[in-house]
Amino acid sequence: MSSEPTLSEIREARQLIAPHIHRTPILSSATLDREFGAKLFFKCENFQKVGAFKARGATFAVLSATDAEVRGGVVTHSSGNHAAALARAAVIRGVPGHIVMPDNAPKVKMESVMRYGGLITFCAPTLAAREAAAAKIQAQTGAALIHPFDNWAVITGQGTCVLEVLEDLPDLDMILAPIGGGGLTTGTAIAAKAMKPGIQVFAIEPAGADDAFRSMQTGIRQPQDHPQTIADGLRTGVGEKAFSVLHRMLDGVVTVSEESIITAMRKTWEVMKIIIEPSCAVPLAALVERKLDVAGKRVGIILSGGNVDLDRLPWQTDR
Amino acid sequence: MSSEPTLSEIREARQLIAPHIHRTPILSSATLDREFGAKLFFKCENFQKVGAFKARGATFAVLSATDAEVRGGVVTHSSGNHAAALARAAVIRGVPGHIVMPDNAPKVKMESVMRYGGLITFCAPTLAAREAAAAKIQAQTGAALIHPFDNWAVITGQGTCVLEVLEDLPDLDMILAPIGGGGLTTGTAIAAKAMKPGIQVFAIEPAGADDAFRSMQTGIRQPQDHPQTIADGLRTGVGEKAFSVLHRMLDGVVTVSEESIITAMRKTWEVMKIIIEPSCAVPLAALVERKLDVAGKRVGIILSGGNVDLDRLPWQTDR
Repeated sequence: MSSEPTLSEIREARQLIAPHIHRTPILSSATLDREFGAKLFFKCENFQKVGAFKARGATFAVLSATDAEVRGGVVTHSSGNHAAALARAAVIRGVPGHIVMPDNAPKVKMESVMRYGGLITFCAPTLAAREAAAAKIQAQTGAALIHPFDNWAVITGQGTCVLEVLEDLPDLDMILAPIGGGGLTTGTAIAAKAMKPGIQVFAIEPAGADDAFRSMQTGIRQPQDHPQTIADGLRTGVGEKAFSVLHRMLDGVVTVSEESIITAMRKTWEVMKIIIEPSCAVPLAALVERKLDVAGKRVGIILSGGNVDLDRLPWQTDR
Repeated sequence: MSSEPTLSEIREARQLIAPHIHRTPILSSATLDREFGAKLFFKCENFQKVGAFKARGATFAVLSATDAEVRGGVVTHSSGNHAAALARAAVIRGVPGHIVMPDNAPKVKMESVMRYGGLITFCAPTLAAREAAAAKIQAQTGAALIHPFDNWAVITGQGTCVLEVLEDLPDLDMILAPIGGGGLTTGTAIAAKAMKPGIQVFAIEPAGADDAFRSMQTGIRQPQDHPQTIADGLRTGVGEKAFSVLHRMLDGVVTVSEESIITAMRKTWEVMKIIIEPSCAVPLAALVERKLDVAGKRVGIILSGGNVDLDRLPWQTDR
């Protein structure tokens, strides 16, 4: 895809990927509603295939490519959920899925990519080394690069999530999503605003990785320098394609502290009995900090993923 | 109620409690289905009010009592999920809910009972002291004792869970539930066998608290001496009322090791992204140990609860 998707393209994307992904449930909690004075609806993409919404974008990007485009397979450089999602999508398409990972990536991430059938190439843990390794694989195999977020097909796939939310809950006032590279937020904003023009869409990010906030303030995409946050999925900077949409569609970016992220994560585990990863707790952290006016509103919150190292939990600071 | 409930009484119980409890979702996992060679359906009572199926039985017992019976309120001695469930049910009914707890009960349990509006009386941490304290409250206030499991109304309420399972999934071959006092298993067996005579119902318990297994083997209810298990909800012995049903209705009791319980609990967290407590992991532990022939079968597993101390997880042995 060469330009930003329309709502009908996002709808077609959902038809294509539907056999391969879950229609995830939407949960709510009377306890959290009371605490925050709003009606909160949690879209559980932590229950999605590979444990994150990333299954949507990667699957659509791989399945919508032409045979010629993916004849040599697909490749990406990522140590996160997109890597597992792309590996899985390549298996569905029946082509090789090459994943470039830093050689210091957590063992649990490597195992996940291998479990889903990915072919791992290790490299030094720098962006330059990752890009070089991916370029080398492209040159040698003809594999198509599927960028984790700066890719219109990936953005289109991520937009399928909010379609399901608004089908089930057409009268939402507001949607909250975490923002890292911006794929999820961009797909969400395009689909949600087209389905319901009056709906508000907010992106939430850690204060220690606040490039989206600074970019929206200045109107110019700002770099993400030395991000410092436990929310490992949100350390990347907003992509060019994402920002070209978000700067005009987003109702705002809210930043949250590390302490609030941990509070929100633990609260979700304790009250809702579901496992979410730190990046996924960021929208609820904005409510913990009372940074959004949600009083009396119906608020959709996209729970982005649930891949956590259960041996090292963020509230166990002595570990 | 003076005798074991019929299916229609369990159906009426569900009508009565429906406004006050969740119809919990049923989740499945392609990963676990592959691992165990069966179709597994997990009924998520960890998402139930108060975080456990206990909300069903306590709510029915309190709401179905006559005004005269509960004029002085209700009382129980429990430090677990029944305590929170009874406290909540008393608030719904508008009567005092007295909870006798050992003075060494975990802080998180006390807080839970207080949050749900329970009136706590502390006592020494022995069964004799608990029974004496409850008897004293009964004598002083006229409160009705609502036993956690040896009570037909409580058993009737617990039976409402499997109604929902079999409505959604009428073609199950087998139901698995954990067994402690036996309230859940008994309500489940009565309802399931009445709805579908050919269905198998198995109870699973820790090998370190195997009174149900020994009772079924001998045909005589055996005492639970010095239970040793991480599954704190299953340390009680099977009740008299429960055993009077189970000895003729149950297809078997399976015991599992502590190691398997921890493996099954962690597997559920990692794969399904949901929080279950150790007692709740016991049925899956039977599959981990390959102690039940589930090959190719459709198996309902009741996930009993999700109340866990997140600071002390069982796989973190150094904590």
